[in-house]
Amino acid sequence: MKDLTVVGKSLPRVDAPAKVRGEALYSDDLVLPHMAFGKIKRSPHAHALITSIHYERALALPGVLAVITGEDAPTAYGIVPQAPTEYALAVDKVRYAGEGVAAVAAVDEETAEEALERIEVEYEVLPAVFDPLEAMERPDVVIHAKAKNNVMYEGKQEFGDVDKAMAASDFVLERRFKTSYVNHAFLEPHSALAHFDANGFLTVYSSTQIPHYLHRTLSLVLALPMNRIRVSVPAVGGGFGGKGEVASSELCAALLARKTGRPVKVTYERSEVFAQHKGRHPCVMEMKIGVSREGIIQAVDFDNILDGGAYGGWGIIVLFYTAAMIHLPYKVPNARFHGRRVYTNKPTTGAMRGLGGVQPRFAMESMLEDIAKELGMSPYDLRLRNAVESGYTTRSNVYVPQAEFKKCLETAAERSGYLEKQGKLPPGRGIGMAGGYYISGTAYTLYMSYKPHSSALIRVDTEGGITLYTGATDIGQGSNTVLPMIAAEELGVEASEVHIISGDTQLTPFDLGSFASRVTYGAGQAVRSAAQAINRKLYEVAAVELGVRADQLISREGRIFSRYEPVRTLDFTAAVAKYIDARGPLSAMGHYSPPRKGMKGVQGANIGQSPTFGFSAQVTEVEVDLETGQVKVLKVTEAGDCGQPINPMSVEGQVEGSIVMGMGQALFEEIKVGSDGRLLNPSLHDYKIPTAIDIPEIDSTIVESYDPSAPFGAKESGEGPIQPVIPAIANAICDAIGVRFLELPITAEKILQALKDKNSGKSVSL
Amino acid sequence: MKDLTVVGKSLPRVDAPAKVRGEALYSDDLVLPHMAFGKIKRSPHAHALITSIHYERALALPGVLAVITGEDAPTAYGIVPQAPTEYALAVDKVRYAGEGVAAVAAVDEETAEEALERIEVEYEVLPAVFDPLEAMERPDVVIHAKAKNNVMYEGKQEFGDVDKAMAASDFVLERRFKTSYVNHAFLEPHSALAHFDANGFLTVYSSTQIPHYLHRTLSLVLALPMNRIRVSVPAVGGGFGGKGEVASSELCAALLARKTGRPVKVTYERSEVFAQHKGRHPCVMEMKIGVSREGIIQAVDFDNILDGGAYGGWGIIVLFYTAAMIHLPYKVPNARFHGRRVYTNKPTTGAMRGLGGVQPRFAMESMLEDIAKELGMSPYDLRLRNAVESGYTTRSNVYVPQAEFKKCLETAAERSGYLEKQGKLPPGRGIGMAGGYYISGTAYTLYMSYKPHSSALIRVDTEGGITLYTGATDIGQGSNTVLPMIAAEELGVEASEVHIISGDTQLTPFDLGSFASRVTYGAGQAVRSAAQAINRKLYEVAAVELGVRADQLISREGRIFSRYEPVRTLDFTAAVAKYIDARGPLSAMGHYSPPRKGMKGVQGANIGQSPTFGFSAQVTEVEVDLETGQVKVLKVTEAGDCGQPINPMSVEGQVEGSIVMGMGQALFEEIKVGSDGRLLNPSLHDYKIPTAIDIPEIDSTIVESYDPSAPFGAKESGEGPIQPVIPAIANAICDAIGVRFLELPITAEKILQALKDKNSGKSVSL
Repeated sequence: MKDLTVVGKSLPRVDAPAKVRGEALYSDDLVLPHMAFGKIKRSPHAHALITSIHYERALALPGVLAVITGEDAPTAYGIVPQAPTEYALAVDKVRYAGEGVAAVAAVDEETAEEALERIEVEYEVLPAVFDPLEAMERPDVVIHAKAKNNVMYEGKQEFGDVDKAMAASDFVLERRFKTSYVNHAFLEPHSALAHFDANGFLTVYSSTQIPHYLHRTLSLVLALPMNRIRVSVPAVGGGFGGKGEVASSELCAALLARKTGRPVKVTYERSEVFAQHKGRHPCVMEMKIGVSREGIIQAVDFDNILDGGAYGGWGIIVLFYTAAMIHLPYKVPNARFHGRRVYTNKPTTGAMRGLGGVQPRFAMESMLEDIAKELGMSPYDLRLRNAVESGYTTRSNVYVPQAEFKKCLETAAERSGYLEKQGKLPPGRGIGMAGGYYISGTAYTLYMSYKPHSSALIRVDTEGGITLYTGATDIGQGSNTVLPMIAAEELGVEASEVHIISGDTQLTPFDLGSFASRVTYGAGQAVRSAAQAINRKLYEVAAVELGVRADQLISREGRIFSRYEPVRTLDFTAAVAKYIDARGPLSAMGHYSPPRKGMKGVQGANIGQSPTFGFSAQVTEVEVDLETGQVKVLKVTEAGDCGQPINPMSVEGQVEGSIVMGMGQALFEEIKVGSDGRLLNPSLHDYKIPTAIDIPEIDSTIVESYDPSAPFGAKESGEGPIQPVIPAIANAICDAIGVRFLELPITAEKILQALKDKNSGKSVSL
Repeated sequence: MKDLTVVGKSLPRVDAPAKVRGEALYSDDLVLPHMAFGKIKRSPHAHALITSIHYERALALPGVLAVITGEDAPTAYGIVPQAPTEYALAVDKVRYAGEGVAAVAAVDEETAEEALERIEVEYEVLPAVFDPLEAMERPDVVIHAKAKNNVMYEGKQEFGDVDKAMAASDFVLERRFKTSYVNHAFLEPHSALAHFDANGFLTVYSSTQIPHYLHRTLSLVLALPMNRIRVSVPAVGGGFGGKGEVASSELCAALLARKTGRPVKVTYERSEVFAQHKGRHPCVMEMKIGVSREGIIQAVDFDNILDGGAYGGWGIIVLFYTAAMIHLPYKVPNARFHGRRVYTNKPTTGAMRGLGGVQPRFAMESMLEDIAKELGMSPYDLRLRNAVESGYTTRSNVYVPQAEFKKCLETAAERSGYLEKQGKLPPGRGIGMAGGYYISGTAYTLYMSYKPHSSALIRVDTEGGITLYTGATDIGQGSNTVLPMIAAEELGVEASEVHIISGDTQLTPFDLGSFASRVTYGAGQAVRSAAQAINRKLYEVAAVELGVRADQLISREGRIFSRYEPVRTLDFTAAVAKYIDARGPLSAMGHYSPPRKGMKGVQGANIGQSPTFGFSAQVTEVEVDLETGQVKVLKVTEAGDCGQPINPMSVEGQVEGSIVMGMGQALFEEIKVGSDGRLLNPSLHDYKIPTAIDIPEIDSTIVESYDPSAPFGAKESGEGPIQPVIPAIANAICDAIGVRFLELPITAEKILQALKDKNSGKSVSL
């Protein structure tokens, strides 16, 4: 394990030089001959029947090539294929303001935009609803015919006997939390370029996290066999879950390309990114936690109403993920969940970094802090007493093979001076702690399948060297750097020797995609096993050359040698040449399938199942301006268990990105919806995200850890670190001003109001 | 063998729709961001020392990005790497008018051209020589210091005892032939686009037949490791051997890209294609053939002086190929060869369709016709008596595994009515016959290596279907259609189900390239063996499913079943899914290495070695206008032995292309060189090639044949059919007007002069 030469060393990203120099090509940078531009006409109404669409005047405009409407693609789809609710363009009715109703292809963007103006859509406006609680009580508003009371899905779980455990608890705390409507705010808007070649074969270049699901959906919606479609992913400017679902841009580009016979590119305006959305579900959460006098958690009872917006998306998955999140990172012997995902007439919510975890984590970690105070314990001690360890199995039957969560808590507390500072800082200054965890991949595909979730092909020749083909997609998270490092470690060469071809459904072997923090762990194992298979082949000839047994050989620093006799060596390149001369060309595949663990009879229970989990603890210091209510995050001390980091620099980047993203959501990010359902701030001017001047000092530590089930011991690091961010800030604010905030974002206005209320003797929980 | 479902059916080329619609992207169609344009400054002198190059004024021109000269790339290279003579740009001296001396990169082509004008090159002009015979006798002209008497290489071979056999022959004919200086005249000029990415990795998109040799040469000249370079081949508009060597355009694009830090494209003007040249070697051939009274060939004595132009190129190879060509397609028990390749101050000659064969074939087939006449035999009978058959080994130890040459002669004679017409047509009408053959690949790489000459990778998944990766390059000859057919036949699916990725040194496995008619035979075997390996894997799971032995399974029409029990079947796609679920991802490689047969002590003897050979016979009818000397080729009856044709439509295309190309060279194609060494007709306006109105009726037949050593029995068809074209026309002209022409091209002027001479009683052999 410790004998590593590539893994564990910080390497700059392979894509960094091109990005720094502005040379990386994103989807919108691509140009094909005779390319046309597609634009989407969007509904001004939040809920309305489409009574007619007239587009003759648009077609008459010189330069306009085609118009499509929902009729051109009447097949519904959904990322959860059992519950298809979405269309490329609205069919018969619109369910949110900004929904696409028609699309046009023209010779340039200006003409396409002018054509949109000439499309006349007649609507019969319907009553609309924007709040999930109200939506359940408005029989006059039927967003989807199948969803009674606008409840898309209701889920219930109980493990153990919650009522009994609550009754037996020494202290029970119950609170109601609300989280806000936030967008991923990735820098690159959705963009897709579709092209049918002269043989009718469709290629779609798109900024997607999951080429495979786009591939499947294109096949479904365009009624084309999958093997007549290729999805290829250029450089991606961030996804964070928002590019994990198919976007109308992708389908409209393909449909318009088919209709016009020309390549068609559709790139969203920022306002369209907000309309496409699929951001974080606003939640109304009622949580009840019972503990013993010693601070040992006895039971958690959790009711969650998720605001789904207009369509299905990842909704069911998110709902059950929120359920799963109460079982970790603390031992919870009894747990109950009741969740409802509710339709509203707003852009659809979906997957966003830390999917399903961020909201309940905010609730639970806020409450643990208050419980500790109530019990007269340090919140740190309370967490430590309940923290899970390696080998733990949750009451919901989720197995945690390896966990260094306690080490995370200890490290964060120690490095931040938490114990010395908590409750002792001057007025307006506060410190807060929180823990968190996240899955490292999932046990299941979204459709029934037993195929490997990741596969990788390595081909080695004496000319081009080592080529790694992987369907895993670098969406900015750095997999094109990390996966070659894994191959290089196993092959005993430098990472720069491994050329990666990735994210292309035709050129590269199958991979499920970049979501659920699965790439390093899952695709990494596929890559490692492919490299091991290459080594086995090379060792057969190297053993003959070196006169030693093949099973004693190892590869290090470009040479192959016996671990018992490292003096005699064979160069890696010489071994490759000898293999090829004697045996023929050299390639091997590797793959990864997660362990599958059935659990009959419990609704949604397996949703939280993952092969392993990453953990994180954070201590955050804030300063609250008592005059303005402004919060300044001064410092975040993070300690993370991501197993053995493959590329520590990349882990640091993930941690810093998570902290900044969580901070924005904690303090100011929120999509505002007008009374007519139109978004009030769908731009990066009006939708505020943290900028460089907001970023706190960050002290992040990767705790010593090694997951033996993982490729070189590596687990996730992209979603775990966002989990504690919001509650750590909320707890720090509470420490600073003595007010417990129960609603996000915790804006300066809310703080000022709270300070005013506090001074006038009102409730301190808001 | 006959149980074929895909192979043997005519399929339109996969690239045809895109080409017909103008959608295919050739190298010059490619555009990269910030791309600059490169142009080459060329010498006006045929032989001169470069005393200085001043380019400050060029650099001062706004929009000029860089200038390079020979100093930027001082490493010599050559397609035959043992004899490097060439440079990216002339170093110290120029050896032909049109040789590149400097190159410029600028923001647009106009600026680049203006910059060329501003580069001042001072020369010290040297005496020059343009005729190889003169070159050997001009000690004052030293083109290359190492080449004494300007002889680049002299080769001698003798097999058997030629002098003794000649003495014992009943009839001996001796003649002197001259062939002309012709260019390939492919439609797409050379074009290359080079780009260094931000990590210093070089990609060159180029119109090349041999990505591998370009890859090697870029590595040598730019002093970069091969695994830091990728060569990728877009659509190619013909090569015919001329794109089998590295062109200055490719090296200059790469050197300028390195110097400017921007992508640089260099596309030749047509005049530059003629300067780059590497077309057919003009030959001065003295041939002596001795025969018995019965027409059995006793000996051939062959002296050949090849005009090499200024540099090495394929020269040594061409020289020995001309030697090899006298050993087939007729049995020659005694043979002697003396060859010299001579430097002259002209654009370099090299490889061109039917390399080394076309010139001696013209000589030998013309002489066989005259010998038959002398012996009072039909030329057809004479050929048939001497024709080789399957299993023949030449006196030079070349083994012919399979040959249906006699069937070709019989078919061509029968379908054309040759025996009825020969010598009996009205004045001015004539009919001529000729035979020919060509290699199907070579036994050796141009550098020492034991690696497979072709490799192929097939990957099958349940999403993208079947992907075939091959380094073989489609240069317009149709390999992207034929290779998927071979895979499809073996896998039992339709050809359209096989996606091909080809001609890319990074994406695809190693292949030697598209030359020497090696692709269908060599790459085809690699593809077939990869497909067989896929089948072996699938049969393991299919056998379990079907309850039969794996070795009884076959694949046909999308299903797998026992050959003894064809009722129970498993769909190919179901077998793939089952394999992947149970075993993991599915891929396999195949490869091809030619048999190697050493032959010690005989200079150049192995050069003609090939794993197998294609054969062709042609009968051509012409009409000679006795007033103008104009020859109209009325009809060509061709019968070819290409083994089992994979795609008969494609074979027909090769035959027709060969006939038209040979016809142009027989009758009018010739590069004219002025007294100062400058080309007089370096354009497709002045250099005449056949057009649609010149094309004769062509009746081509693929004779029944099957080479068991070949993939589905297939041999070459791209170079064999050009071999008989010129002598068949010459023989037909001789039949029409009674004049034997010994020099190419046989222009109207020469014919008129010959008719005049004949009428005045002069010699009839010209």
